[in-house]
Amino acid sequence: MIIVMHEDATEEQIAHVVARIEEVGATAHISHGERVTLVGAIGDREVLTGLPVEAFPGVERVVAVLKPYKLVSREFHPADTIIDVRGRRVGGNQFTLIAGPCSVETPGQIMQAAEAARDAGASMMRGGAFKPRTSPYAFQGLGREGLELLAEARERTGLPVVTELMDPRDLELVHEYADVIQIGARNMQNFQLLAEVGKAKRPVLLKRGAAATIEELLMAAEYVVKEGNREVILCERGIRTFETATRNTLDISAVPVIKLASHLPVVVDPSHSAGRLDLVLPLSLAAVVCGADGIIVETHPSPETALCDGPQSVPTRAFREYAAHVRELVEFVGKSIS
Amino acid sequence: MIIVMHEDATEEQIAHVVARIEEVGATAHISHGERVTLVGAIGDREVLTGLPVEAFPGVERVVAVLKPYKLVSREFHPADTIIDVRGRRVGGNQFTLIAGPCSVETPGQIMQAAEAARDAGASMMRGGAFKPRTSPYAFQGLGREGLELLAEARERTGLPVVTELMDPRDLELVHEYADVIQIGARNMQNFQLLAEVGKAKRPVLLKRGAAATIEELLMAAEYVVKEGNREVILCERGIRTFETATRNTLDISAVPVIKLASHLPVVVDPSHSAGRLDLVLPLSLAAVVCGADGIIVETHPSPETALCDGPQSVPTRAFREYAAHVRELVEFVGKSIS
Amino acid sequence: MIIVMHEDATEEQIAHVVARIEEVGATAHISHGERVTLVGAIGDREVLTGLPVEAFPGVERVVAVLKPYKLVSREFHPADTIIDVRGRRVGGNQFTLIAGPCSVETPGQIMQAAEAARDAGASMMRGGAFKPRTSPYAFQGLGREGLELLAEARERTGLPVVTELMDPRDLELVHEYADVIQIGARNMQNFQLLAEVGKAKRPVLLKRGAAATIEELLMAAEYVVKEGNREVILCERGIRTFETATRNTLDISAVPVIKLASHLPVVVDPSHSAGRLDLVLPLSLAAVVCGADGIIVETHPSPETALCDGPQSVPTRAFREYAAHVRELVEFVGKSIS
Amino acid sequence: MIIVMHEDATEEQIAHVVARIEEVGATAHISHGERVTLVGAIGDREVLTGLPVEAFPGVERVVAVLKPYKLVSREFHPADTIIDVRGRRVGGNQFTLIAGPCSVETPGQIMQAAEAARDAGASMMRGGAFKPRTSPYAFQGLGREGLELLAEARERTGLPVVTELMDPRDLELVHEYADVIQIGARNMQNFQLLAEVGKAKRPVLLKRGAAATIEELLMAAEYVVKEGNREVILCERGIRTFETATRNTLDISAVPVIKLASHLPVVVDPSHSAGRLDLVLPLSLAAVVCGADGIIVETHPSPETALCDGPQSVPTRAFREYAAHVRELVEFVGKSIS
Repeated sequence: MIIVMHEDATEEQIAHVVARIEEVGATAHISHGERVTLVGAIGDREVLTGLPVEAFPGVERVVAVLKPYKLVSREFHPADTIIDVRGRRVGGNQFTLIAGPCSVETPGQIMQAAEAARDAGASMMRGGAFKPRTSPYAFQGLGREGLELLAEARERTGLPVVTELMDPRDLELVHEYADVIQIGARNMQNFQLLAEVGKAKRPVLLKRGAAATIEELLMAAEYVVKEGNREVILCERGIRTFETATRNTLDISAVPVIKLASHLPVVVDPSHSAGRLDLVLPLSLAAVVCGADGIIVETHPSPETALCDGPQSVPTRAFREYAAHVRELVEFVGKSIS
Repeated sequence: MIIVMHEDATEEQIAHVVARIEEVGATAHISHGERVTLVGAIGDREVLTGLPVEAFPGVERVVAVLKPYKLVSREFHPADTIIDVRGRRVGGNQFTLIAGPCSVETPGQIMQAAEAARDAGASMMRGGAFKPRTSPYAFQGLGREGLELLAEARERTGLPVVTELMDPRDLELVHEYADVIQIGARNMQNFQLLAEVGKAKRPVLLKRGAAATIEELLMAAEYVVKEGNREVILCERGIRTFETATRNTLDISAVPVIKLASHLPVVVDPSHSAGRLDLVLPLSLAAVVCGADGIIVETHPSPETALCDGPQSVPTRAFREYAAHVRELVEFVGKSIS
Repeated sequence: MIIVMHEDATEEQIAHVVARIEEVGATAHISHGERVTLVGAIGDREVLTGLPVEAFPGVERVVAVLKPYKLVSREFHPADTIIDVRGRRVGGNQFTLIAGPCSVETPGQIMQAAEAARDAGASMMRGGAFKPRTSPYAFQGLGREGLELLAEARERTGLPVVTELMDPRDLELVHEYADVIQIGARNMQNFQLLAEVGKAKRPVLLKRGAAATIEELLMAAEYVVKEGNREVILCERGIRTFETATRNTLDISAVPVIKLASHLPVVVDPSHSAGRLDLVLPLSLAAVVCGADGIIVETHPSPETALCDGPQSVPTRAFREYAAHVRELVEFVGKSIS
Repeated sequence: MIIVMHEDATEEQIAHVVARIEEVGATAHISHGERVTLVGAIGDREVLTGLPVEAFPGVERVVAVLKPYKLVSREFHPADTIIDVRGRRVGGNQFTLIAGPCSVETPGQIMQAAEAARDAGASMMRGGAFKPRTSPYAFQGLGREGLELLAEARERTGLPVVTELMDPRDLELVHEYADVIQIGARNMQNFQLLAEVGKAKRPVLLKRGAAATIEELLMAAEYVVKEGNREVILCERGIRTFETATRNTLDISAVPVIKLASHLPVVVDPSHSAGRLDLVLPLSLAAVVCGADGIIVETHPSPETALCDGPQSVPTRAFREYAAHVRELVEFVGKSIS
């Protein structure tokens, strides 16, 4: 940690900073520049970041040198983490295509979607039984019944199930049905929930919050891994910006940035970022060439009657063609769909 | 709801949109412009917003006419909501000054802060027992012990307690100690939590998420009110932007915007928006003249040793002077501190 | 244009709105909803958008129905615009690879860069003689001398020259040397400059401003086309967001969004958006699969001594390999480098 | 400047960084931490910032220690700059109220606005003769004729004139009529224009760009001051964010941040930030209590027929009351309107 002192900082203030650093067992190095004095603090990261140095008199600002996460960093674990989900591998030279409707609505709907996903060669199926909705008047999901329908669809198609957990009180229930537990963007900093799934025996798909930096996403993943669950799949799904042509702005650069900084696999959600069908294929292709380990995409037998996210869902009748385009590019970059 | 058809939309596509609207019991009006056809849909708001019209062929975009919230709107309840917290009134011509440390750390610390708040004439005290922290390695709060210390401080000073709830499983516990339950910015769209406090018998202080629009804040409040709890205090605490000189960008315009749109009281958090002490007073004064119903501000007996938010905390020794400045302006605008 | 009246709007206020619309020669249609009245205004777009309807009493808000640009829209000109630059075609099934240093520094530097670009099969070369720099103390470009060096490099390599114009007073000079005149992101809304290049006889490469919406970019292009110059190449180069891992956030979705909305060709600048070398190749590939008509990328013989943008420049010694990767994907999507 | 080396950086890479720093005449200090090595570089600021250190092998990132501006900083010139405009002082304990229409439209309009401003006790008048408009089809200003009308209004009312310059070719013309030359938000980084007004003999009112950081605003001011013109008034007018309830988000914190960092006076534009009349007064009051040196506000005799910015203009008939509210608060904070 480097402490930049104010140009007018007194010798006394500098000495006070040094004293406080040494008090907590760290070492301080003073470096006098022409106009500004710097104090470098070396010691235990957690102790140092807990020190409110900006509150000390004469301090202009503090620059962190070490990254604020550890277990999820590539420095800590240089090799790619590869996760096995009922025999489907996520990460490495596999590309995971996860497809399904935004929410489970009816037995027919989820079965049709699951079969379309399987027929097109998808790796897993998605579908929400618990839905976070901006409006309290919108459809909130079928709950347990939805989970049961997902399990039936899994039985029929063999596709593992990715589904969202929103409330720690539902963990046991979701755990029973899900193969991968999804934490949605709105819950990326629901730290209790993160700690709970960190103790669970299921891989976690963690979506980036709409206003979260990449560093904050990695720190959220650190919450999970710290509790013992090392199987975390990160998901870029668009961030909130001033642009209104898309629902969110897909931060495609996040894919290579995360792959450089972390060993965890990364998937892209082209549906929620775009919010419109005509962008889903190009964004999916961008994910492939940027090094993503997979895509999580919405498909629905009848987008016109969908209770959620109809406008961005690939109709199941068009899904095979969509998947063929994706597969062709996946193979071009030397991977295969898992 | 107005549906703007694509310039190339066919008569068949227009007819299909009309048919779908009528199917759900609403009425459709077609209006042909020179280049574009509009379809107006009149009917039950919830039914109409549930219809994925953007997914219909030929639809360019959909414009909502009605606001997506109801119970919290000023049209629904024109008079200001005034909330009574152990005899302190929030709203109307009262100004609520809530002060205390970011987190409860020790018996001495919370007592000193509470006494400084009371001596300076504050209305309530704040202090976190459960703390949402970006890093899993940061101090996470004292939990139940913190709540007990808050209760002791309340006993000593007479100041009602505002404290945060993060997990629905802690509701009963927090309910027992808190006079006002705070929902933090990161949980503004934790809809399960909102529904739970909507059933509680305590006023709720709901903080705006760092990337939430004002409309989304009002919809989050609607979640609470819909469950029966009409005592919601909204809180503007800064939004995430590209500017890095401050921790967040205080959206001071949100105060008059919310007062025009809703009957609920609004308070401002100058500490979290600024992230630095030297801005806390000017931002507090801005809140007063923009019509806020109160301020929630951080004060700490020793910011230099604070476990959380030290850099932005008003030292308790300076709090009386800070409060005197605020009070003077509160009285100038014709209100009094409750 | 649709005018949404306030819920409390009086009949008199509605009549006033209608009267004002009819006064300017347009037609008004009133539509009474259960709670809200709408007034639809049909007439000349420019006349209607000039009317400050939001300032009329009783008006809640105004919704534009027609797009605010015309000449650049795909509705106006359905076929792709293809631009010929000294025999190199931009648009259609050609992919334009523009490469070169951020700024022209020395004869050796620009010649080496140009030769590396040519040897790798690039379509055109870039290089700034006039540089917009955030700091007044940074290198501001060589001016006329830089233009002359570009002309020499063109002579040697046969590559057409793309170079920036910042000041209308330099138009004649830049016109003499440039094959494509670049308007930088900071000048996207320098409307005098846009009007001047609209009268020029050179294609224009117009970069999106860091805080400009796609719609505003198209309106800036409309300024150019309106003056008679239909040869405009749009450029996505990243937008300003809260994320700090990259210099800007590349809005890759902008490529398909613009291709749907406009007939103009679109290129992507992976260098300025990323601000770091390790992202340049993946972002370039993303541009290819999202349908971009080209890339404008920075290469420098010695990034370590570059006066500008060294950290994101591909070293010329690595450029051939970079270009080979891009070409391979360009051919995979069925295009060829022009 | 502090260079943070990558955790895997070799000794050779560190030595190379040191060598390059010493090559340009600066001094390097190496500091080995447990996991990361830092290199501190001390020397001429301009030389160091010109070095593309991020491009050197093994470098993780670079942290600037010194501020990138000098002449405009409070360290360089601790006392407030006070500017005299025809006897009206800007800065210090004066508060400057600048009022007038967005654009000069007709002789009657500008005269009425000027008289209303004078009658209400305003310090100066504003009005645009050259207008930057997002759409090429919108009213672009009266040009020279507008400047002449402003001069007549000044003659009649005695109020100095603030008006915008957009094109360096119009400098002489605007110089002849204006008492303060305004540089609009879209031109904040039009560096040629900044350099030109830096040589002019008129105070400059420099508006913050909608996506500019405070630091970038100060660097733009540095461009002007570096050329010799020390009379720069900074203007906060709202930044672009995701919030759509207001046209821009007024960054009220910018006022105290700038006052701490710079000696230049700061004014606030409540009209452009809000984009709606009902917020203009509260935002004006916020400016006063946050320490702004003035307000630049729009007033129009007939907002309903205004060619520009009608929805946010205070009608002249209501301007006296508006100004009375502002004055009352100005006097409360111990200043007087100049």
